[in-house]
Order: sequence, then structure tokens, then C-alpha cells
Amino acid sequence: MSALPATLLQPPPPPDPLDAVHALAAQLATTAVGRDRHGGHAAHERALIRESGLLALSIPAADGGAGAAWDVTLRAVRILARADSALAHVFGFHHLQLAGIALYGNASQQRDLLRRTAEERLFWGNALNPLDKRTAAIETADGFVIDGIKSFCSGALGSSWLTVSAWHARTASALIGVLPTTTDGITVRGDWDAFGQKQTDSGTVTFDRVLLPSALVLLPPGAPPTAQATLRSQVAQLIMANLYLGIAEGAFAAAREYLADEARPWFASGVAAATDDPFVQHRFGELWTLVRPAEALADDAGRTLQRLFAKGAAVTAQERGELAVAVATAKVLAHRAAIDVGSGLFELTGARSTSAKYGFDRYWRNARVHTLHDPVDYKYRDLGRYALAGTLPEPTAYS
Amino acid sequence: MSALPATLLQPPPPPDPLDAVHALAAQLATTAVGRDRHGGHAAHERALIRESGLLALSIPAADGGAGAAWDVTLRAVRILARADSALAHVFGFHHLQLAGIALYGNASQQRDLLRRTAEERLFWGNALNPLDKRTAAIETADGFVIDGIKSFCSGALGSSWLTVSAWHARTASALIGVLPTTTDGITVRGDWDAFGQKQTDSGTVTFDRVLLPSALVLLPPGAPPTAQATLRSQVAQLIMANLYLGIAEGAFAAAREYLADEARPWFASGVAAATDDPFVQHRFGELWTLVRPAEALADDAGRTLQRLFAKGAAVTAQERGELAVAVATAKVLAHRAAIDVGSGLFELTGARSTSAKYGFDRYWRNARVHTLHDPVDYKYRDLGRYALAGTLPEPTAYS
Amino acid sequence: MSALPATLLQPPPPPDPLDAVHALAAQLATTAVGRDRHGGHAAHERALIRESGLLALSIPAADGGAGAAWDVTLRAVRILARADSALAHVFGFHHLQLAGIALYGNASQQRDLLRRTAEERLFWGNALNPLDKRTAAIETADGFVIDGIKSFCSGALGSSWLTVSAWHARTASALIGVLPTTTDGITVRGDWDAFGQKQTDSGTVTFDRVLLPSALVLLPPGAPPTAQATLRSQVAQLIMANLYLGIAEGAFAAAREYLADEARPWFASGVAAATDDPFVQHRFGELWTLVRPAEALADDAGRTLQRLFAKGAAVTAQERGELAVAVATAKVLAHRAAIDVGSGLFELTGARSTSAKYGFDRYWRNARVHTLHDPVDYKYRDLGRYALAGTLPEPTAYS
Amino acid sequence: MSALPATLLQPPPPPDPLDAVHALAAQLATTAVGRDRHGGHAAHERALIRESGLLALSIPAADGGAGAAWDVTLRAVRILARADSALAHVFGFHHLQLAGIALYGNASQQRDLLRRTAEERLFWGNALNPLDKRTAAIETADGFVIDGIKSFCSGALGSSWLTVSAWHARTASALIGVLPTTTDGITVRGDWDAFGQKQTDSGTVTFDRVLLPSALVLLPPGAPPTAQATLRSQVAQLIMANLYLGIAEGAFAAAREYLADEARPWFASGVAAATDDPFVQHRFGELWTLVRPAEALADDAGRTLQRLFAKGAAVTAQERGELAVAVATAKVLAHRAAIDVGSGLFELTGARSTSAKYGFDRYWRNARVHTLHDPVDYKYRDLGRYALAGTLPEPTAYS
Repeated sequence: MSALPATLLQPPPPPDPLDAVHALAAQLATTAVGRDRHGGHAAHERALIRESGLLALSIPAADGGAGAAWDVTLRAVRILARADSALAHVFGFHHLQLAGIALYGNASQQRDLLRRTAEERLFWGNALNPLDKRTAAIETADGFVIDGIKSFCSGALGSSWLTVSAWHARTASALIGVLPTTTDGITVRGDWDAFGQKQTDSGTVTFDRVLLPSALVLLPPGAPPTAQATLRSQVAQLIMANLYLGIAEGAFAAAREYLADEARPWFASGVAAATDDPFVQHRFGELWTLVRPAEALADDAGRTLQRLFAKGAAVTAQERGELAVAVATAKVLAHRAAIDVGSGLFELTGARSTSAKYGFDRYWRNARVHTLHDPVDYKYRDLGRYALAGTLPEPTAYS
Repeated sequence: MSALPATLLQPPPPPDPLDAVHALAAQLATTAVGRDRHGGHAAHERALIRESGLLALSIPAADGGAGAAWDVTLRAVRILARADSALAHVFGFHHLQLAGIALYGNASQQRDLLRRTAEERLFWGNALNPLDKRTAAIETADGFVIDGIKSFCSGALGSSWLTVSAWHARTASALIGVLPTTTDGITVRGDWDAFGQKQTDSGTVTFDRVLLPSALVLLPPGAPPTAQATLRSQVAQLIMANLYLGIAEGAFAAAREYLADEARPWFASGVAAATDDPFVQHRFGELWTLVRPAEALADDAGRTLQRLFAKGAAVTAQERGELAVAVATAKVLAHRAAIDVGSGLFELTGARSTSAKYGFDRYWRNARVHTLHDPVDYKYRDLGRYALAGTLPEPTAYS
Repeated sequence: MSALPATLLQPPPPPDPLDAVHALAAQLATTAVGRDRHGGHAAHERALIRESGLLALSIPAADGGAGAAWDVTLRAVRILARADSALAHVFGFHHLQLAGIALYGNASQQRDLLRRTAEERLFWGNALNPLDKRTAAIETADGFVIDGIKSFCSGALGSSWLTVSAWHARTASALIGVLPTTTDGITVRGDWDAFGQKQTDSGTVTFDRVLLPSALVLLPPGAPPTAQATLRSQVAQLIMANLYLGIAEGAFAAAREYLADEARPWFASGVAAATDDPFVQHRFGELWTLVRPAEALADDAGRTLQRLFAKGAAVTAQERGELAVAVATAKVLAHRAAIDVGSGLFELTGARSTSAKYGFDRYWRNARVHTLHDPVDYKYRDLGRYALAGTLPEPTAYS
Repeated sequence: MSALPATLLQPPPPPDPLDAVHALAAQLATTAVGRDRHGGHAAHERALIRESGLLALSIPAADGGAGAAWDVTLRAVRILARADSALAHVFGFHHLQLAGIALYGNASQQRDLLRRTAEERLFWGNALNPLDKRTAAIETADGFVIDGIKSFCSGALGSSWLTVSAWHARTASALIGVLPTTTDGITVRGDWDAFGQKQTDSGTVTFDRVLLPSALVLLPPGAPPTAQATLRSQVAQLIMANLYLGIAEGAFAAAREYLADEARPWFASGVAAATDDPFVQHRFGELWTLVRPAEALADDAGRTLQRLFAKGAAVTAQERGELAVAVATAKVLAHRAAIDVGSGLFELTGARSTSAKYGFDRYWRNARVHTLHDPVDYKYRDLGRYALAGTLPEPTAYS
């Protein structure tokens, strides 16, 4: 990759962890186009992630991890997403599960699970989809029996452990627990078939009378949500914002390189190089004004997340709500940047750039699939409500 | 397909030819998602087109054809594109080659070639790409020898005859002729590999010392372009505009049906059906305001084309130029409608609609590939020049 | 005005009535900038309108009028609005009141009122605002007593007659009647103070125990609305669409002339004339793609309106509903064209074009004020509902 | 003003200087609507600015000023622009002249002029327009004679001193000097008549054989521009960006307050308050996503400016160029925010909000006039060139 504008793609002098991230991204990039085409489970690349040591990136140093702040971990998600947004998602959601342990779990759970994760290079997946209530939890003497099915279980296939949610009818609420993926009765299906983000292993998990012991329950049913606990959805939203942004940055860089190396000027342009075409320059400037602000706001929100995360139980609902506004703003901008750059780059690069060998359509396809996680219109609504009356977004799994 | 708003998708009571078109579209629709996924040459579906009799749609009745006006033929392209824009392109470009014969050829060529096409159900392809000058023509006693290579030869594979252009160095101009695809020295490659419009057979054609007899030269090198002859690029541009529009209409209808039959309301919407969500209604209204005007302007331009086509050699440069403005306006609107509906529909249909089984991404992919035929920015420029000073677009292969 | 692109501003060879409209527009244009600045009642210009004979434009020939079809009358509104959208509104709403007489009134009312209007060159205004229910009607032996206040009474000041609505509590519905503006108890205030459309005389009318005899009641309270009667709101909406469009066309033409005659190229452009700047050409092309489709759809809708108007009581709810969709589509496009051209033209014309002597800001101000008549978001909603499920817009005073 | 969302309008706990700025803004706000209507020279309000002490805001403490960093001075411009963007411009350009002294002047000039400015509360204006070359400088024994005319001289009327540029034919370059506004031969005209930013006193200045002594020449003709000297145009551009942003914030706050206090829900909305309308909430969220990123990027750029300004002669061309990119990005976003919020707010507030008593059109008018300082398309071009190839914007008076 040739030299890129400093402020867009090159982070400030990286601390060590991001060196490893860049190295991993370079590894993933070499096969990304082919793997996007064929989809399926990326066992080899997941092994590369495991070997990079980056599964311990967000784990506190005291528990054997790299102790990276959240803004650094989010930056890692973004860097990986430039090269391969499917595996960046698997990586990001691994750290989301670790965030869940830190936010929901008691001190002993935190210590045991995080430490084991660092030591054994455990890869976490999830079976948490809160809109899918087909998985039920029934109390037993020593925990719960989990039974049913969950869709959209990103990272479940190939994982060591899972975060699991199940509907508890008596309290009309969900519990959240953790389980080894190999637990009896858990079946992870490779049935994810979206047209983008193909290697996120986001298929179905079924639970056939699975025992969840009390010690592995992070959030019991009926537990009132604290401001701290509800930070988790902001971690999730900000992982997604950074993922979209990585896609936008990757698409932007791909357009830039193609224009420099391969594109021909349009016959009617009167210029010698495509990059001298005033319309190409103007459009690229427009795309820049989509990407750059999204970067700035995602970084700001990442730092705020880190600050509130570090406050632990002392975080207030007001702080949590203002973070949610900052995150929603960044996510909306990143969403638009990813979709518009992923689609608009072709107006610049032209007909020959649609050859499958470049795989440039994957930016739009990956962004398109992932940005549907929750509807952008409800983000605009939440931002509008806040701007109109200071109303904080209601804490949900999506806001 | 359930009932659709009258003005969007249902043409006025169709004359017979469009009945056949709708029937053919229905046939193509049944396998469109699968064929889009696998790409390759659609031999069976090309046979269906041939059997439909619609290859003679635009051929004058006197020459054995259906004698449809251009606005009807363009409507046919649009209807087919709703179901399968790749085969709609092959179909449309077949008729474009017939237009070329009518606009460039002498009376005898017109009669012979059009009549044979009707009688033998010939399928025409092209090897015409005017920006690819690697194919040379050298004069011989009785015509020319053609030698070289052409890219982007839509419909060449599987065709009976080809329109061919070749660069003639002495006059620094191109000749245009026709040849049976089986002519000695012509090789048609199946090397088209774009991520959309996969079954347009738009690969490479090579010419190895191919003899083009004078009788098959439609436009000799150095012939000054007449207003009539340069109508051909307007036929091409308007075929594309209708193709984009068919994609937009197809995507619009797909979103509508999915929303009616499959979509679930967002949990925070407070409504019982996705179609009751005010944001869904509003966005769908916005998409409507992209599709509907493009339809109106494409239809207007089609009628103007027919009128000028019928004038034959009497058409003036001013008339041709004003048609070009009307066509460019329609094409820009159709371009935007196809891209924006093809990408934007997902904001309405949501995460579950990205399953490969629906194939909804093909609208964007097909539109994205095809709308790069020539840069939209130069259309805006041409429209601006006209609006600023009445300057007519320069007659080129693209304007 | 120098020659303009044929399809944008020059209607097809005009029948006689439009000659008079163009002449009137030219008269209004000479003082439009100054009158916009100072606002107030345009007594002199209203006299010019009266003298032009165009107040009888839409009146059937049998009743002494010009018998123009609605698409012609709407075209007149548009032409006047290019020069002076405030007086175009007064003119358009005059014809709207005549439409109301034709749609609501009985045969005798129609004959008497239309004939008198033609003969005496009556100028009609309105006191109809359906959202302002502060005017009450109470039954008397021979009609009603009207008491209260109405806001947004366009054209009332300086009018000969008024259409009036009043709330009838017993039937919880409004009546509609007509009254000479000089009727005892009617006071028309010159209190309209919006920042645009300043000379529309859209102030307040007060009714102090005004007697409305039965013979002047067009629509009695509680009368069930027929499809024919509810055509009136479509006449109103289409007058507005054409008015917005006239503003857009006027702004477009102003930009074009300024660029040709006055603008200087930007120092960094490297071109000799502003009109050679590729960014100027591109932007002007973009504005064209806003104006041109709005024109096409407004014209289509105008012809449909005329067809349904002519059907009288035979018009069906389905026909009326499909007209409402066509009108809403045209209105949304015209709205956007007026706002975007009115604001965007300055990116082309530059700093010096903001001198008050040109008055170019009046396009945006006039469009901005008038496009708020009813919220565009509810138009998008209505269009979306129709596109989603064929739901026709609910007949209201605005849809 | 009721409580506003924290991140949009309320800066972090302000240091003392911003307290004075807020107080001044509150003073200006009380008469802003009326003064916008009537235009003219705001002698009284300029006196208020002078009395506030804020003319010394950016002057180093060592020279008797408040020693505020540039990001603080820019914040002051923004805060004032919320209330009155015309006087904010006069205020901002005063500080721009001081920046010019610091960047161009020698140590003695800096000390003398800045100190006098602080002590005597001098108000600076300019006669600098680099595109207007009608003012000539001819060398004399002890300086230059200045002769000619300058347009767009913001802040000249009512100023104590002027920065002046004049064209020097021999070196084909401009000199820059300073002069008391009362100097013999200088005439400042009150001929500014734009439809917005009415009280910026941006009229014409004429020079009738005015003597400019050498001691008052800041930049002699032919002096090669240093990276430090060319920082001045970035100060100017960033003042403008903050001014646009202040307009956007002011419009946003005005919409918010009107919606809370005055607006009525649309009859078809089915909600009790306008702020509960989902379309209102959604649109307001969209406007938020225009304003918020512009704020973040303007603040970032302001801090970078301060850092480079403080480096003095050590600033490099690369640093200056990257600052220019950051400033251009912020300016483009602020431009769009000001125009789009200034025009779009009315879709939310509705017809009644167009009464002249609110003066809400002034946001669009002020933004429209001021954002034409230099064409936004050349900013997009510059950003595109940088993004494509790392090309830094050419240092000019505008980039």
C-alpha cells in the first residue's frame, strides 16, 4: 500500500499492541478477497488471531492481558476491518464478551474467566440475540436448564466459550451466563448465509436441555440493570461503529490505490491521469468529508467509553446516556461513510474495477449486511429526542 | 407478486408484444437468484428469449418483425430487467445492433440482415467497444482484414452475428461492420468476471486475420457522422437507462413484497407491522420519488427517440442534440434510482433480508456494474453545459 | 432574457392565453425585486392582473371565461411565479376559489358566480384555513351567522369576494360559503409579515356577526364529502407545486443569466469564463436534474387533474386517490427543486451575487415560506403508504 | 434559553474570557433580529464589543492582552455568531488583523501595534481583498504611495486601524501594511448591501494618494511567503468555519426552542406535541449529525492552529499543509451545517415560524452570504487531491 494521507489511515505513532494488529491485518489482507468469495468458517485465520495474542488485548494486565484501553481495542477492530471486516467482527465480539464479564460478572467470575482467557487463548462467541426469545431458562436446584434456539450468534462456530442469554418466563426477563461451547446439548450450526460478512460465523445455536450452573450466571433473571451493566450495549455499538469505519477506510484506500495504479482517465476528460480529473478529485474530497468526521467522533466516543468503563459501578445514568449519544452519533456517521464510500468509490474507479479479481464490491456488501444490526432510523430518532429535549436514549441492547 | 401501485410497475393495458415480455420475465425470474450467484453463460435462458420471438420485436413488420416502436422495445428491456438485468442487457443490446443496421446500413443491408434476423431468430452480439483500439482494420481488395482484440463485448458469447468495430489507421477513424460469429478467426472468450451483470457474456473477442467483405461494412472508415447515424449512441444510452430503471423497479417491488410478507417491526417501533412504521413509510416514499420521475422521463425520451428514428435521414443535429439531453436526464435519474433503491431498500427490510436465499444484493451489484458504462459526472457536465448555454452534447459513442 | 434551453423554460408554442400570461409576467418582473423588499399590498400589480383578463382564464367559455384547461391555468401560475411568486399565488388562489365554486356549488351558484367573475373581473380571496377553527357558524332562519377570526387568508386583502369556512359545532364539521369582501362585519387585516411571499396578502380576516345567506353556502355543514368535492385540495396542492416550480425555474434562469453576464471565474479555476468551470457545469447539471423531472411530473398531474375535473360527479375515489399520489409526487419534487435551486444557485454565482440589487435571495425566501403550507414529511409518508400497499391518501384539505 | 444538550451548545466549563463572550453574546442577541432587518453600521454594538475588553482577547499577556489561545478566540467567534454572525465577523476579523501583525510583522511592529491595540482598545478592519487588484503601491523614498479602490473591506467602517494590501507592479506581487483609518486620503464607504451579514461593514475603501511609511509595512512586495506567514489564511478560514458553525448552532437552538415553546403538532400526526412527532425527531437527529461533527473538527483544527502559531518561524510547510487540510475539512462541514440547518429548520418549525418577528431566515441569509467567501468546490478539490496523493493545498489567500 502506497503512502496514505496521514490523518486518514495512519494512526498516531502506535503503541506496541497496534503493531501486532497491523501485522495481523496484513496477514488477513492477503486472502481476504478469496475468502469473501467463498465464505465459510475461517479456521486458519481464527488461528492466526489466536496466535497473535490479541485475544488478550482488552484484558487487564493484572489478569494476564495487554491491558489496552477501550479506545485502543476499538482502534484494533477498525484496523482489522480495513482488511477483513468479517474477522474484525469476530475479533471485536470476542472482546465484547470480555466486556460483558467485566460489566456483569462478580469479582471471582471476572478474575477466573479473564485469566483463563488470557492463559488459554480462549476465543469467545455469543448466543445472545435479545430479540430472539426462543431460548428459555428454567430454574433448577443449582442453576438453570437452557432449552431452545438462538439466531445471529456471531463467532459461536469455532469458539471456546459462549455468552448465552435465555428468556426466563417467571420474571419476564432474560438471564445472561457463560458456557464452554463444548457443553453437552449445545450445537453450533454453520448456517449463516448472508451476502456479506460471510465469515462471521453468525449462524444458529441450539440448546438441548443444557445445564447452566449458578457459578456461570453473570446476570440473573430479574436483576435490575445498572448504568454500569448497560454500558455493554455501548461497547457493542462502538465496536460496530469502528467496524463500519474500518470498512469505509478500507474502501477509501482501495479506491485511492486503484486510481493511482490502474485507472485510466475518461476519454472526454482531457487529462493525462484519472487522478487529475477534476470530477474525480471533487468526489474523492466529498468521500473524505464522510470518513474523516466519523473517525474523529468514533475516537472521541472511544475515549469516553474507556473513562466510564474505568469508573466501574460509579458511572451514572447521565454519563451513560451522554456516552450513548456520542456513540450513536459516531455510529450513524460511520454507517453512512461505509455505505456511501463502499458504493460511491466505483463512480471514481470505473467499469474495469468491477472485475471479481479486485473484490471491491465486498466493502458495500459487508457494510450493507452489518449496518442492519439495528435500524439507523431509530438512532436518528434517539439523537433527535436528545437534541430536542435532552432526553437520554433508553438503555436497551441497542441503545 | 401481489398487486402493485398502478403507476409504478403496471404499464398501461399492454399491447400484445408486452404480454410476451411479461411471460418471458416471469420465466427468467424463477431462476434469476441462482443464476446470479453462479454466473456463466445462460444458454438455456438465451434459448427462451429466442423462442419468445422477441428478438424480432423492433424489426419492421415489412421485414418480418413485430414492428414495435422504440418506446415499446425499451419498455420490454425495462420489464425484463426487473427480473433479470443481465439477460435484459443481452436482449437490449441485440436490439441495439439492429438499430445500428437501420441507422448505418444501406437499404440492401437493412433488408437482408433484418429479414434474416427475423426468419432465423438470429441473436446479435457486439465487439464494438470504441475505447478499446487494439483491433485494427487494413484494407484489402474486397474489404478489410480485422486483427486484434476487443474487451467488454456484451452478448458476443452465444451470438449468431456480431457488430464489430476496428481502428483504421490511415483515416484515424473506426469502421463498423457485421460478421457471423462463426467467421474464421473470431474467438469469443468467456472471460467476463464482474461482480454484477454476470450473465451478460461481456468478455473478450479476438480477431485473427478475419476477412470483412465490403458488403458487410455498415460504416466505412472516415465516413462523416450524420445526425441519423449518431442516434445510435442515444439508443444505447436509453437501453441502459431503461435497464437501470428495471433494476430500480425490481428492487422496489422486492422490498415491498418482503415488507408485506416477511419483515418484522422493530421492537422499539410500537407498531404491529413493519409497514406501519412511520420511518419505513417515509423512506419508501423517498424511494418512490426516485423511481417515479425516472420512469416518466425515460418514457418521454423513448417516445422522442421513436419519433426521430422514424424521421430517418431527415433528423437534424438540433433534434438529435435535444434528444441527447432528454436521454442524459433520464439516464442520470435512472442511475441514481437503481443505486439508491438497490442499496437503500435494506434500511427498510433489515438484517434478515440479507440472507443469500433472497438474492436482494443483486440489484445493487447489477446496477453498480452497469452504471459504470460511462461516468455519470460527464452526464452532469453535459446537462450543465446545455442548461448554461444551450450547448448540445457532442455526439460520441457515449453522448 | 437570453435564449434558454428549450425544454426547461420555454413551453411548447403557446396558445393565446399564455401569451397574455407571459406579457403579465414581464410586467411584474420589472418591479419584483423592489416589491419583494418592501412587501405590503400590491394594489397596482393586482390591477394589472385584473386588466390582463386572466382572472377569467379557468372560467368556462359558456360562462364568459377563456375556458382554459387546468393544465393551462397551472402553467400560467408557474410562468407568473418565475417572475413574482407572491402575485402568482394570489392569481392561483383566485382560480382555486373558482374551482371550489365549480366543485362544491350547485348549477345556479356556478353560473351566477362564475359569470359575474368574468363580467366584473372579480378578484377572489379566501378565509378558509381549515386548521384554524376560531370562526364559528350558527344557523339562522335563512342561513348562518359567522363569527370569529381566520389566519393565513391569502388574497383576502384587495379581493372582491371571499370563500369562507366556519366551524359548525352541532355537526362537528365546517361549512363553506362565499361572501363579498365588503359584507358588513368582515374586516381584512394587512398583518401578514412572513419573510417571503410578502405580497400574498395572507393576513387575518375577522367576522363580526356576519350574515351568510343560504344561497351563498356552497357546502353545508355535515355534507358528506364526495370524490368530486375533494378534488379541490388537489387543485390547491397542484397550484402550489406549480408555484414552487416557477420559483425553481426563475432561480435557475437567474443563475444562468448571471453566470453568462456577470460572474467571474474563480482565480484557481484556470478557465476564462465562469461557465467553463467544470464544477460550475457539474453543479448546474445537478440542478437541472432537480427542475426537469418536477416539470414533467407537474405537467402530467395537471393533465390528469383536467381529465378528472371534467368528469364532474362521475369521478371515483380511486381516480381521485391516484391523482393525489401524482400530485404529491410532483409537489415533493417541486418543493425540493425550489429550495435546492434557490439556495444552491449561490454556490455557482458567488459572493458578488448576494448584493441586494439582484434580489436573488427572494427565490429561497419565497420557496421557504410557501413550501411550509403543509409538511413535506407527511407527503413522503402518504407516498410510502401508497407504494407499500396501494393505500390512497386520505382526502383532507391537504391530501 | 432553556437547557440545551450538553455537547452541542455548552462548552466545557469556560475559562474567564468566555464568560465575557457569553455576556456580550447575550447583549447582542436582544437586538439582533431588528438590526438584521435594517442593516447599516452597528456603532452601538461595536462600542459594546470594545467595552467588553474582548478586542484584546488574542493579544499576548506580555503585550497587555488576555493571552487566549487561538482555539479559545475561535470559540469566542462561534459563540458570538450564534447570536449575531455579522458582529461576530467584525470581531473575528479584528483578531485576524492581529494575527497578521504577529505572523508578518517584525518584533517592533508586533510589540507596538499589539500593545497599542490593547491599551487603546483599537478596533481593526481590513482593506485586503487579494482578488481586487485595483489598488496600486508605488515606491517612494520612505515607503509607498497607495492609490485605488478595494471592495469587500469587512470591518473597515468604524475601525481605528486597517490592514491594507496593494498591488506592486514591478514585483508583480502585493504588499501588506497597516494604517490608521483616519489617514489622509482614505475613504471608507458604507456601500455594503448584501442580503445577509448586513452589519459587517464590508463595503469599499478608496485610497487617494495615501502615504504608507516603511515602518508600517508588514510584508514588503516580493517577500517570499514563509510557512509561518501563510498561516494567516488558515486563521481566516478557521474564523469563517467557526462563524458558520455559530450560525448552525444558533439556528439549531432557535428551532429547538420554537419547537418546545410555540410549535403545534401537525393535525395528521396523532401526537400531542410537535416534539413527539417521529418525523420531527428524525429530522432533528439528522441536523444534529451535521452540527456535531463540524464542532468536533473545528475544535481539533483550532487546537492545531494554536500549536503551529506558537511555533512561530519553526512551523514547516508540511505542518502548515496538514493544518490547511484539517481546516478545509472543518470549513466544508461547517458550511454545509450552516446552510442545511438554516434552511432545513423550517421543515420542523412550520409555517407560523416564518413571521418576520422571529427573524429565523437570518440564519440562512447570513450563512448564504458568508459561505461564498471562496467556493466550496475548490475545497472539495483540495481535499480530494490530498486524499488521492497526499498533495498539500497550495498556500493562497484562501487555502
